[in-house]
Amino acid sequence: MAVGNAMAGLITGQECIRGQVVLREMGIGGIPVINTENACASAATAFHLAWLYVASGMYDVVMAVGMEKLFHEDKQRSFAAIGSAIDVELMQQTLEKMKAVTKDNSAESGAGKSRSMFMDFYAEFARDHMRKYGTTKEHFAKVAAKNHTHGSLNPHAQFRTPRTVEEVLASPVIAEPLTRMMCSPIGDGAAAVILTSAEKAKQFTSKPVYVKASVLGSGKDRQPGDPGVTERIAKKAYEVAGIGPEDLHVAEVHDASAPAELIIYEELGLCKPGEGGRLIDEGATSLGGRTPVNPSGGLLAKGHPVGATGVAQIAEIFWQLRGEAGDRQVEGAKVGLTENGGGMVRGEAAALAVHILTV
Amino acid sequence: MAVGNAMAGLITGQECIRGQVVLREMGIGGIPVINTENACASAATAFHLAWLYVASGMYDVVMAVGMEKLFHEDKQRSFAAIGSAIDVELMQQTLEKMKAVTKDNSAESGAGKSRSMFMDFYAEFARDHMRKYGTTKEHFAKVAAKNHTHGSLNPHAQFRTPRTVEEVLASPVIAEPLTRMMCSPIGDGAAAVILTSAEKAKQFTSKPVYVKASVLGSGKDRQPGDPGVTERIAKKAYEVAGIGPEDLHVAEVHDASAPAELIIYEELGLCKPGEGGRLIDEGATSLGGRTPVNPSGGLLAKGHPVGATGVAQIAEIFWQLRGEAGDRQVEGAKVGLTENGGGMVRGEAAALAVHILTV
Repeated sequence: MAVGNAMAGLITGQECIRGQVVLREMGIGGIPVINTENACASAATAFHLAWLYVASGMYDVVMAVGMEKLFHEDKQRSFAAIGSAIDVELMQQTLEKMKAVTKDNSAESGAGKSRSMFMDFYAEFARDHMRKYGTTKEHFAKVAAKNHTHGSLNPHAQFRTPRTVEEVLASPVIAEPLTRMMCSPIGDGAAAVILTSAEKAKQFTSKPVYVKASVLGSGKDRQPGDPGVTERIAKKAYEVAGIGPEDLHVAEVHDASAPAELIIYEELGLCKPGEGGRLIDEGATSLGGRTPVNPSGGLLAKGHPVGATGVAQIAEIFWQLRGEAGDRQVEGAKVGLTENGGGMVRGEAAALAVHILTV
Repeated sequence: MAVGNAMAGLITGQECIRGQVVLREMGIGGIPVINTENACASAATAFHLAWLYVASGMYDVVMAVGMEKLFHEDKQRSFAAIGSAIDVELMQQTLEKMKAVTKDNSAESGAGKSRSMFMDFYAEFARDHMRKYGTTKEHFAKVAAKNHTHGSLNPHAQFRTPRTVEEVLASPVIAEPLTRMMCSPIGDGAAAVILTSAEKAKQFTSKPVYVKASVLGSGKDRQPGDPGVTERIAKKAYEVAGIGPEDLHVAEVHDASAPAELIIYEELGLCKPGEGGRLIDEGATSLGGRTPVNPSGGLLAKGHPVGATGVAQIAEIFWQLRGEAGDRQVEGAKVGLTENGGGMVRGEAAALAVHILTV
């Protein structure tokens, strides 16, 4: 059993053996339990381990669980927990330097503001993309409107109201150009999947879904021209699976913010660098488009219970490939991808996992 | 890279991506990093994963790191962190019930006392063993005196003063029959080992140490007559390695308290149930004895930086099997075992790992 959780320690005080405490309540004991943490990629890491146990032949049946308790009555506690996915010592130093330079101690800057530090990073990435490629705030709004509309079709989604581009743009600004509807919300949640060997799977189902690639990596200090972590890991996953991005029928990706999804299009090779805006304009990633992305509603609308997200993405692709996704079904989906990133160290994801599944 | 850490989140605020933050400081990036947690068995869990990566053929070279930041100026913070290795919700309920029944709010009972809750459990286990088998407080003191004396020979040990049985008995009582010298101390620490395939190892050394068994498990609700978790996991490890307890030349075991080590003798099959006292009386587990246990000084004297301990045990056995353990060398050691337990759910270790190494 591999259990992913990121932040429940700071929220609940149950710092250790989180998996065992929950599982014993369910009457599950005796088996190996590994608690894994990789910030927002904790659950994909748990899935990767469960896969490794089965793929190596060590165990026949392994469960991967992702779970999160992120909601706290004091929202600052939740933000502090999310902030612990960055190098907290470095972050503290940066905040103090910023304070010293700007002398700006208003509630909306620095510590104590009513948003996660991550959204400042995402806003910066978004502005950078706008400067470089002429991407607009409307492009990001289109991503958010698409995912909220997808989410409205998903009974498991946190938000189930379809949204228009206008509504997304009219929602309160969090950090320019991000509006609230372009940011993933705080929430609790859990997801679980069971992995077995292909042989064993026959005992349980006539419609197995196969894991074709499970690749985990981390960010590093890059030289000019080096690919980013997402591009690097995705490339390896495509190699392992023996496919390319053009072969994907559906993907669940880490849209912690709307601009992130647009940039991920490019990093996964769904379009060329700088063409994410064009791709969303064409509707290629909407349900009914060429390669629907985040039919579940993604982190923006399905929700982002941090340590659960990676397994929830796998569950969505599982349903899609089996044709069991109801109103949000991608017709004829046979090949799906998940991308789950977590934490940040010096500007890159601290952990990133890409999985490719097929039927 | 597999990283074990248990409690630094509550001590430092760095709840997430602890491994990546530390490793990037050292210039290590890009590779997969998995943060694992299994309370006091976090590091053995990390080692188990690193082993799985290599044994499965997925990677050739993997590092297992165990690290802990447990010391805090406010000792209650350290105790609270250690307390999070138990089901905290259940514990809170128990404490409230105890308060309601005894109306005893003195500093030495319930929350706020100057010891870890774990020592109450160990004291209860010790009293139980005394009642059942006639084991005495002196037996436990002998274990502690042995480990402190072993530790005095280990330059890596937290305590390097040899102790006599009389000194152990004269140290302050923590929870009857435990005196302070029978309890593992609070401390920070880290350990790392590198695993490679047997083929690859030839490139680096002419004296490789082999992992013959790596078994991880967890406690469960037992029926009368069921073996405990340690006995169960050890039995499986012996089976996998194709040896029995009589073949061991040296062992590093989880002596979080002195009685624990004595009970572990029986659970590992170094003697029959109830004969732990006799074994320590005979000096069988001292340096120079039949099967020296905790030549490093163990958790009692080498120290117990929670999330580092399991890898530190492996490092000690590595040195022992290569004949590099200096003054604490076990002559001719060719087969060694480590036992690392962590957390507690309803009276049994939440996680427990046994490793068997050979040259």
